[in-house]
Order: sequence, then structure tokens, then C-alpha cells
Amino acid sequence: MNNIIKARVKKIFSFTKSMKVEPDAILIKNGIEGQLDSTFFYLTGVRSGLFEGCSIIAYPTGKICLLTSKLEEQSALNTPHIEINTFETELEYKELLKKKLSKVKSLGMNYNELSYANYLWIRMLLKNIKQVVNVSKPIVEARCIKDEIEIRELRKSAKIASNTFQTIVGSLKENITENQLSSIINHDLEKQGATGPSFQTIVAFGKHTAEPHYAPRNFKLKKNKLVLCDYGARYNRYCSDITRTVFFGRIDNRIKDMYETVLKASEIGLKKVKSGVKASDVHNAVEDYINSTKYNGRFIHSTGHSIGLNVHDGASISRKSPVILEEGMAFTIEPGIYLPKIGGVRIEDDVIVRKNGPEILTKVSRELIEV
Amino acid sequence: MNNIIKARVKKIFSFTKSMKVEPDAILIKNGIEGQLDSTFFYLTGVRSGLFEGCSIIAYPTGKICLLTSKLEEQSALNTPHIEINTFETELEYKELLKKKLSKVKSLGMNYNELSYANYLWIRMLLKNIKQVVNVSKPIVEARCIKDEIEIRELRKSAKIASNTFQTIVGSLKENITENQLSSIINHDLEKQGATGPSFQTIVAFGKHTAEPHYAPRNFKLKKNKLVLCDYGARYNRYCSDITRTVFFGRIDNRIKDMYETVLKASEIGLKKVKSGVKASDVHNAVEDYINSTKYNGRFIHSTGHSIGLNVHDGASISRKSPVILEEGMAFTIEPGIYLPKIGGVRIEDDVIVRKNGPEILTKVSRELIEV
Repeated sequence: MNNIIKARVKKIFSFTKSMKVEPDAILIKNGIEGQLDSTFFYLTGVRSGLFEGCSIIAYPTGKICLLTSKLEEQSALNTPHIEINTFETELEYKELLKKKLSKVKSLGMNYNELSYANYLWIRMLLKNIKQVVNVSKPIVEARCIKDEIEIRELRKSAKIASNTFQTIVGSLKENITENQLSSIINHDLEKQGATGPSFQTIVAFGKHTAEPHYAPRNFKLKKNKLVLCDYGARYNRYCSDITRTVFFGRIDNRIKDMYETVLKASEIGLKKVKSGVKASDVHNAVEDYINSTKYNGRFIHSTGHSIGLNVHDGASISRKSPVILEEGMAFTIEPGIYLPKIGGVRIEDDVIVRKNGPEILTKVSRELIEV
Repeated sequence: MNNIIKARVKKIFSFTKSMKVEPDAILIKNGIEGQLDSTFFYLTGVRSGLFEGCSIIAYPTGKICLLTSKLEEQSALNTPHIEINTFETELEYKELLKKKLSKVKSLGMNYNELSYANYLWIRMLLKNIKQVVNVSKPIVEARCIKDEIEIRELRKSAKIASNTFQTIVGSLKENITENQLSSIINHDLEKQGATGPSFQTIVAFGKHTAEPHYAPRNFKLKKNKLVLCDYGARYNRYCSDITRTVFFGRIDNRIKDMYETVLKASEIGLKKVKSGVKASDVHNAVEDYINSTKYNGRFIHSTGHSIGLNVHDGASISRKSPVILEEGMAFTIEPGIYLPKIGGVRIEDDVIVRKNGPEILTKVSRELIEV
């Protein structure tokens, strides 16, 4: 793990080379739960613990210092490759930070995942620092290209989510509610070793499928309705994200046609994925195809987003994305068509970008299923 | 709901009266998932939807404007009491914000839950605004005192978590793993209507109980060991948080004595809670008691934290807390004793502060249990 972490630190610093002012060190400071910076976990590899308010300092040599409260010390001790500094009071914390950063002239911070309150706190504390620079872009760029350890976690995470699809199909019956099915999905993910779902599971029946970010209710499944499940596992902090839309009973041809269009769009998207291709070209191919059908204008979101420690990990496959696909990047490909008050279909897979095409992590058939 | 939301907005503005510069309006802007501002949900009451990057503007009159992307429009439409503005592009979003805030001279923002990147984005956009002020303190103060709707949700959330304790006791058997028990807990919470756990469930067996923020592993339960479960439900976005420590089999007198000490500390803490009392006095009473026993120095965290839309909702019951308890505040009371390499005991309950004492929301006996 030591070498892996070192390589991650160096990767981030290598992406800072193009900045006007390069940082001498990077400080990552967590907020409270719900305001944590995933980069903290990227650069430590700690698996347990919450680490609210804790910090790490990364140096261009690849070295990492962890500053942690007593409360998380035991969790931190599971990372023998990292220098651990424990504080008991805020004063001790401040003294540690000052000491560790006394020689730093330009400090990098991750503005995207740092609260403004913490920014001000650090600025007040570290008066010796001449310049603070935003390293969000280098961080997103570095985290976007996954290393072998990360790909292993993503594969496992996608495998768990894929297995759960069988449980979904086996659970569909009249009068089951969206909430009940969501709970079955979450339990099935955990039974396989996931910490939990990677985001709030979406289960939508019938017309509810027309809402891309729907939240499940106590709404019962009836015969001949659409079922859309969008969910993922969090495994060793890494996220998968899959969507399948199936038919419960027999479905009329109108919906079937919609499904076939999304399936075609999914194939177009997946086929486009390989290193060297512009992310925007992948999106445009998918959107242009849908817009060439009678569903013109009914694909209302981007084709995909990067996945990793966050389920939305910083980069997107969209019309305006500046990303050029590189080997090791992990993305979702998720075309959808939404007809308000009628229904929606989305098919979503997780892929790793490879030289000659995508490595598809989600192992569930995309073909039309009637249950 | 309309009047409730209005009252919440006015409550926040009433707490800004003591500020040097009072805001004419407050802007809350969400980051990505994992960087959302709970105040967004406090001031809208929206139950479904993710609302990444979306904003609300609150005015001293009690009015709320919601600015949402197309993706969340359907979820937003479930809140008829709020003015909803939908945008499709970032340019439209910016124009909307400029228009809505054109007359504002001093703008309040929640520095605690606003990313620095978003702060800069808003500053660049709204050049007409003379002054930006930090309203984190008024927001924490307002959110700390729960209204009747919130208390109803907290009661329900605590009831779900309390019911789950029976499932825990019923599930204890030799060789069950921490991960398995954690998964059973989460599933049981959801079966009762929770969206999920309110934080990553802690299940610790044996010596692992000595780590306050332990994360469950594939570790098997053996006879005559301690079992500590720290978990809570998220119900309509509101969090409960309960800990019980039980004995699996027969426990030696050393651990029994530790349990009795924590139980006494819990009673001391609960007894202290009523309006008008300093939060620090509650903590000191608990800590002083533990320090007067042979477990001197083994209580290594604060006595409690406020709960609400966040499981750590902004205020604490600790030595340095400036809070004076007021009717309607919601806190945990959670003394613990931790002996590294031996084990730990924690007893945690959720309470609403009332005039003459605590309303205890968690309905599980605190007495010693051998299973």
C-alpha cells in the first residue's frame, strides 16, 4: 500500500505542473460528516473511522502526514505506511499544523471539497503561507485515472451490484412497495460485503420511472408496469452504480419501442468508449442518436459520470466535458428516455476505459426482460 | 408546511439581529452529493431528490425561492409552498441568481456547509453585493431548537431505532459476524420505514468495543464477550442515534463494574438536562463522576451532540460548549468508558430538552442485559 499511496500523491503533484504557482504541499481538511473530502481516504487508504475535522498533508516526495483526533487513533493505526500525529485539543491541532507547514510557501487546498469556514480557519492559522492555490483540478484529474488497487475495488463493487439484480428479479410480485424493494436491494448489497448502498437506492414503478432522481415511496407494484432500479454498492469506500429497467407483466409496444431505443443508445455509448476519445464525443453520439428518433429532447441528463470514492467522482461524459478518455478511467454510461406522466427507461453500466474499448464491470444482461 | 417553513426562515433571521452586519437575504448553495447543505432541506421540506448544485434564497419576510435543475424539478414540485425556478443550463442558473439577488446589498451564506469553490463562484457572479456575511452561527442556533414537525420526525426516528434493539438481541448467536449483525440492523431500520441508517452502523465485539468509532468487520462473536451497537435511523431525513452495550454469555465482574459506572454516568447526564442549564455543566457532571472512579481519564469524548437533519447537527454537550439548553433542543447523552485492549461500554440516548427535564426519545432499557 505504501508504494500505491506514494504514486497517488506524486500523480496529483504531477498534475500541478501546469499551474501558475505550484504548491509545496497539499493540505486536505475534512469537515463534519457529510462534508468529508474523499481525497482524505484516497491518500490514506484508511478503511474504518469517520475522521471528522481531521487533516492530511501531502508532500511532493510522496510522503503523507495524518493529523487525527484521539477518537480516530485506532483506525489510523491500521495504516502503518503513514506518519500519524495525534492531538487531544484544538490548540494541539493548531500547533501541529503550524509546525508541519512552517516551511511551506505555497499551499494547495481542494476548494471543491473544503468548506469556506475551514478555508478561513486555515488562513487565520497559517499566516506564514504566502499563497494558497486551488488543487481541485489536479485532484480530480489524478483520481479520475484509477490504479490497480482501485480497479479491483470497483470490480468487486460492480460485481456485488450485478449479483443483486437476480434478487430484484426474484422479488418482483404484485403489491410489493417501492420502499420494500429498495430495502431488499440494500440488504442484499450488504449481505455480500458492501458497507451499504453507494447512494440512496432508486426504485420506481410505473409512471414514477419518468423522474430520473425519484425516491421510493410506499407505492405498490401492479401488473403490466415498468420497474426501474438505480442502485450501487459501496465496497471498501468504492462505488458502483447500475440501472436496469424491467417489465412486470406484459408491456405495450409503445414502451417496448422506448426500451429498444435506449438499448441502442447504450450500445452506441459503450462502443465509443476507448482511450483517446473525447468524453463529449461519447455523449454527442448517444444524444444525437436519441434526438434522431421520435424521442427527440427526452434524454435530459448527461451520458455518464466518473465513479470512484464518490458516486459522482468529478468528471462527466457530457456535451461540455473537457475530458479525453484515458486508460484506467471509470465511468457510468447511462442513456435514458423520460416521458412525463407515462414512464421512463434508463440502462446504466460501469466501465473502465481501455485501449481498445470498455471493460464493462456490471455483468447484467441489457436485453429486455419481462418478469 | 408553509407556515412552518416561514417560521424557520424568520427564526434564522432573528438570530442574525446580533450580527454587526445583518443580511438582506441568505443564499444556500449545495455542492455535489456528500457536500450538500442540510439547511437546504430544513428550509424547503423536500423529501425526495438529490439537489446537487441547487440553491435556495431566503428573505427576512419568510419567503423562499428554490433554484433547481430540470433533473430535480419533479421532486421540487412536491413543495407547493415554495417558489420554484427551473434552469436548464449554467448560464440560465447564473442569470436567475443575478436577477433574484439584484437588490441585495449584504448576503448571508452558510460558511460551514458551503464549499470554498462555491463561495468563489458566487462572489465572481454577484459583483453588486457589497458584503457577504457568515450566517453559520444563526443557522446552527435556529436549527438547534426543533419545531413540532421536527420533533415528530425525531420521535419516529428514535422509535424505529429503539424497536431494532429487540432484533439485535434476537440475532445474537455464536459466530455471527459484526458485518452480519450490522446488515441485520440496517435492514430492520429500513423495514420500519427508515431511508437507511443515519450513519455507518457500528457493531463491535469483544475488545473492539474499546474503539469509539470502530467499523464492523468479518469478525465472529464468541461466548462471554461484550457487544456494542451504535446506530440510528434516518427517517424523512431526520436522524436518531442510540448505543447499547450488552453481554453475550456471562461477563466477569470487572466489565460489570465498568457497565454500572457508565449507567450511573448516563443517569447523571439525563438528570441534568432541562432548559436553562449550561451544556458544559451537563458534560462536567458526567465527566467529573467518571473521573472520580477508577476509570479516571477513560471517558475520551464529549457527552453528547445535537441531532436533527445531521447526526452531528452543529452543537455539542462538552466542556467548552457555549450552549445553554432550551426547550425543543435535541441532543444525545452518551457517556462511555474505554479500556484499550480490554473493552468499552457506551450507553447513548436521544433527548428533547424540556422545562423540567428530558423527554427521552429512545425507548430501550438501560439496565445491564446478559443474552
